Amino acid sequence: MKVVVSIGGSVLAPDLGAERIREHAAVIEQLVEDGCTVGAVVGGGTVARDYIGTARDLGANEMKLDEIGIDVTRLNARLLISALGEEATPSPPEDYEAAGAALKRGDVCVMGGVAPAQTTDAVGAALAEYVNADLLVYATSVPGVFSDDPNETDDATKYGELSAAELVDVIAGIEMNAGSSAPVDLLAAKVIQRSGMRTVVLDGTEPERILDAVKYGDHEGTDVIP
Amino acid sequence: MKVVVSIGGSVLAPDLGAERIREHAAVIEQLVEDGCTVGAVVGGGTVARDYIGTARDLGANEMKLDEIGIDVTRLNARLLISALGEEATPSPPEDYEAAGAALKRGDVCVMGGVAPAQTTDAVGAALAEYVNADLLVYATSVPGVFSDDPNETDDATKYGELSAAELVDVIAGIEMNAGSSAPVDLLAAKVIQRSGMRTVVLDGTEPERILDAVKYGDHEGTDVIP
Amino acid sequence: MKVVVSIGGSVLAPDLGAERIREHAAVIEQLVEDGCTVGAVVGGGTVARDYIGTARDLGANEMKLDEIGIDVTRLNARLLISALGEEATPSPPEDYEAAGAALKRGDVCVMGGVAPAQTTDAVGAALAEYVNADLLVYATSVPGVFSDDPNETDDATKYGELSAAELVDVIAGIEMNAGSSAPVDLLAAKVIQRSGMRTVVLDGTEPERILDAVKYGDHEGTDVIP
Amino acid sequence: MKVVVSIGGSVLAPDLGAERIREHAAVIEQLVEDGCTVGAVVGGGTVARDYIGTARDLGANEMKLDEIGIDVTRLNARLLISALGEEATPSPPEDYEAAGAALKRGDVCVMGGVAPAQTTDAVGAALAEYVNADLLVYATSVPGVFSDDPNETDDATKYGELSAAELVDVIAGIEMNAGSSAPVDLLAAKVIQRSGMRTVVLDGTEPERILDAVKYGDHEGTDVIP
Amino acid sequence: MKVVVSIGGSVLAPDLGAERIREHAAVIEQLVEDGCTVGAVVGGGTVARDYIGTARDLGANEMKLDEIGIDVTRLNARLLISALGEEATPSPPEDYEAAGAALKRGDVCVMGGVAPAQTTDAVGAALAEYVNADLLVYATSVPGVFSDDPNETDDATKYGELSAAELVDVIAGIEMNAGSSAPVDLLAAKVIQRSGMRTVVLDGTEPERILDAVKYGDHEGTDVIP
Amino acid sequence: MKVVVSIGGSVLAPDLGAERIREHAAVIEQLVEDGCTVGAVVGGGTVARDYIGTARDLGANEMKLDEIGIDVTRLNARLLISALGEEATPSPPEDYEAAGAALKRGDVCVMGGVAPAQTTDAVGAALAEYVNADLLVYATSVPGVFSDDPNETDDATKYGELSAAELVDVIAGIEMNAGSSAPVDLLAAKVIQRSGMRTVVLDGTEPERILDAVKYGDHEGTDVIP
Repeated sequence: MKVVVSIGGSVLAPDLGAERIREHAAVIEQLVEDGCTVGAVVGGGTVARDYIGTARDLGANEMKLDEIGIDVTRLNARLLISALGEEATPSPPEDYEAAGAALKRGDVCVMGGVAPAQTTDAVGAALAEYVNADLLVYATSVPGVFSDDPNETDDATKYGELSAAELVDVIAGIEMNAGSSAPVDLLAAKVIQRSGMRTVVLDGTEPERILDAVKYGDHEGTDVIP
Repeated sequence: MKVVVSIGGSVLAPDLGAERIREHAAVIEQLVEDGCTVGAVVGGGTVARDYIGTARDLGANEMKLDEIGIDVTRLNARLLISALGEEATPSPPEDYEAAGAALKRGDVCVMGGVAPAQTTDAVGAALAEYVNADLLVYATSVPGVFSDDPNETDDATKYGELSAAELVDVIAGIEMNAGSSAPVDLLAAKVIQRSGMRTVVLDGTEPERILDAVKYGDHEGTDVIP
Repeated sequence: MKVVVSIGGSVLAPDLGAERIREHAAVIEQLVEDGCTVGAVVGGGTVARDYIGTARDLGANEMKLDEIGIDVTRLNARLLISALGEEATPSPPEDYEAAGAALKRGDVCVMGGVAPAQTTDAVGAALAEYVNADLLVYATSVPGVFSDDPNETDDATKYGELSAAELVDVIAGIEMNAGSSAPVDLLAAKVIQRSGMRTVVLDGTEPERILDAVKYGDHEGTDVIP
Repeated sequence: MKVVVSIGGSVLAPDLGAERIREHAAVIEQLVEDGCTVGAVVGGGTVARDYIGTARDLGANEMKLDEIGIDVTRLNARLLISALGEEATPSPPEDYEAAGAALKRGDVCVMGGVAPAQTTDAVGAALAEYVNADLLVYATSVPGVFSDDPNETDDATKYGELSAAELVDVIAGIEMNAGSSAPVDLLAAKVIQRSGMRTVVLDGTEPERILDAVKYGDHEGTDVIP
Repeated sequence: MKVVVSIGGSVLAPDLGAERIREHAAVIEQLVEDGCTVGAVVGGGTVARDYIGTARDLGANEMKLDEIGIDVTRLNARLLISALGEEATPSPPEDYEAAGAALKRGDVCVMGGVAPAQTTDAVGAALAEYVNADLLVYATSVPGVFSDDPNETDDATKYGELSAAELVDVIAGIEMNAGSSAPVDLLAAKVIQRSGMRTVVLDGTEPERILDAVKYGDHEGTDVIP
Repeated sequence: MKVVVSIGGSVLAPDLGAERIREHAAVIEQLVEDGCTVGAVVGGGTVARDYIGTARDLGANEMKLDEIGIDVTRLNARLLISALGEEATPSPPEDYEAAGAALKRGDVCVMGGVAPAQTTDAVGAALAEYVNADLLVYATSVPGVFSDDPNETDDATKYGELSAAELVDVIAGIEMNAGSSAPVDLLAAKVIQRSGMRTVVLDGTEPERILDAVKYGDHEGTDVIP
């Protein structure tokens, strides 16, 4: 089974502490032991926000800020690589071809962002599509796809299951509200839709949930059905 | 004045004939003569569709098809470069940094696609944002932004002027309908919105319209106001 | 057995249709199944001629035209890759080292042109020499090496067998006539000569002939004997 | 006058705040205005230490830690680039040739680390040597070269002036004590010695001191005399 | 005036001594002073022959030997660069695009080989074509184009003038004899022919002859007329 | 067992003859046959000294001379690769990541220098640390670590065993004397110290000594104990 796991930066390294990273690495190692081919994509989190905030103060435009964000995601990827050791690519691949080559030769590939104007959510979906993955898992800080941003709206309800087309609609709706943030962004949702890939969105703050989701299809997040 | 012109593939080279390409080159040369710094982004058009169609038949996934599309956009960029001669970058830059460096040293930069899951529409907006362009012009096969795809819907009405936020809404609406195509895609619209860039969408089949739009603000397309 | 197959662009994709490409892929897959290591080099064909014609009209010099030609050969290589799927390199290697690495790890390598002022004929011979191939096959639009260009001269006779030195002489003779085209170019012939590589030139419009030639030495083209 | 300024990470961005970075940018802009060609090399500081600490916990070896450190120095370089705007290279050059090319065309070059097992101190000296700089300035967190680490030894005395050979000796002596840290490392000192470059080591926490040192030779740090 | 000078390795550095290199550099500097744009291509000479001989003994194939040859040409290019100082590219460009960019910004470009199965003779012609040079000069160890290799055949006669087509014929004839060596190789001759470039072949052991040939058209070698 | 062997240029190819290189290749092949993973780093030797001498005469600065030196080390690496054939990387990796990837997939990696201001001694230690080697062997022209340069000082005594910290002290002492040369340089010694790697320094002029040292720990050189 070929799995791509997209791990939010604040989920992987809320504070640059080693513990959470070690847990995520343990889950990936378990998946590999169970015979999975695993690609991981890692987000930027707090450090990215700090650097981007300062650079914005200093006058950088949005594209330059995206480049800074990408650099931080790659640093975070290096942390996960450190925990995985020789099973993983020695440094984060910078494009899909290098990532695909790593998976093909049996390495765990850990990457960050790829290009400006594209989040690591989208990179996760793109990588999964590129390697024809069987499953794409988003390990996010919210426990699934909601009708609205649950941090902004009280009566946001979680979807247990969604078609890819519905996912695109829901995310499009959430993104209309500038303040709100969706668990995956619209570009990612569209790639999921076009590729017809099975996708799960779940709470990544307890990494072993990823394991249950991949191995037993058992999770309390949202299933996106092609 | 720093201008980025995004030229649709079917607008630049509907049939690989030299004439239309020569006209677009003439417009760019005129702009340069008038003191403008010009970046051009070129789409894929018919040849891209042919290659993508065959590759899809042969079983390539969407990411691989995007890569094929990117290669064709770069071939088309080489045609425009051929017409521009030594004023232009000798080959299409493959990322924004190289493109920006070309503009900085006074070359006309002509590029195609940059990364999969990203149209040349989006590349145009991203390049414009990267270099802090004063104006972004989309030379498309439809004469502006319509309330709907005018090829699909009879009563589609053209907007003379639109805010960037409205542009995002309109495009999001059009993209909901699988069969319809918008003059610029949603990712491009979002980049336009976040960067607050002045943007014009106009009919590119008569290249000299670009000249009028840039020099005199005179055109029959759509103005996107930051 | 290590084989390099050089497939003319007009032989592989006379019209960008999927069928002929699928047949060539099937032959390569059969060779792999039979235990061969296979490298393929693909030419430019009609699309290359179209792009080059337009670019020449627009004023590009011969080196720039060569670059355009190379880009088209790589697009054609992507089509063959699409048909081969995960057995092949995900994109065409751009130099011999990357190609050799692919063959070494057991992938089918599919490449196009490498450098200007060098046809894909020459690339085929160079790749074969680089990887110490046992056999080099040219799948061309003429059914072997003739004393003259058979499309230009009625009494051109086909050689069943030729030494490499004779091949160089024959090709040199044909190339003297500007209008005539040889089945492989002179640089390729010289590489064949210097490397002492066994080479077959045959009609590539029926791909299964390649299979017979490789497996049984059975073909109606020309054998070049080191 | 060609100047290379090496700015310690904790001097440039002790807390990722914009203010100190803006001050350093202002000094560089002033130098450029006064006709200087300026290359800057930026260190890693607190963020580097945090990432390296976590990665070491996770089991990364020293070379991998160096790579992480390099990535952080480049992020810090991007902050200084953000403040400098279009005067600077758009992203940090990754080798001396790219850095030298930037200086040659009149850009301010801002870079971080280059290779593992080499600090940004050494990169500063190497860049200065590569471009035949007239002056190399180390803006550090200690106000010059001392006979010992002043944070470790009470009676450490500051040198007003030193020959390059003496510098090498002093630094070699300090580096013998594992706990102590020198204002520039031994490799940097040796490059300074072999190139015969005029060098100043000064307190970088007040950036305008750099200006005085470069323009008037006026500073309270240490002069290294070739 | 745009000039490309191709200097044989044994002409530039018969013994790695500094003197001959300094003379060639002086000629180039003089040309630049006189307003020329100058590209230089440098061959391998004795050191190349030594390395290639040993590698052949050790079992390397011809392509690998070509790679070794290319590396030596680039080393020789670095020597000429050392003599030219900041007027030249800091290191030898590895492809035509980088070389062309250097010439465009006014640097002297000094390069060696580019791709296996291609001599530096051919690189010289290709570079000249790529940049639309006005003149291509071969500074060789024989004083022009002869009817035969003058080192092999007593009654070889030197041509004062030749058409490009005649050059191709003469070279083709000489190359037929395995032992003989032509002043420029056949691929170079063909590029000269297709591009219609004015070309001079002359004795490069006295570098100032190049100066006379470029400035006054005055030389005792061979003129190749388009 | 993972071994990195650093072979001095004058040890590997005192005169570019094939014999010594063939012997070193045979030792490496024997190690591979015995189950070792082998990385080799090769120095510059006489050819490097010749090129560097000429370039220094011509005015190149030390960084440029380092680049020339690196190029020669890579040429020497190509000779060793020629002798090893398909067991080795086809060309010398230019960074640690590529080298590590080669070792991981079971190739013998042969590399030269990596970055200026860093000898191949240091590259050997850095590569060994990067890949977590079990043993690092320096095959040098002196038979171990001496209290002083034995070519300069009569009563220099050889150490049979040394701690890494002592190694650093001894090397630092030797390097103080401009004329003296140590068997490994100080940067290498420091990397050995920080990584805690088992290291042997021995006489490389008889390559089979490397075999005995690796297989049986049997040698007459110096053991550096972590």
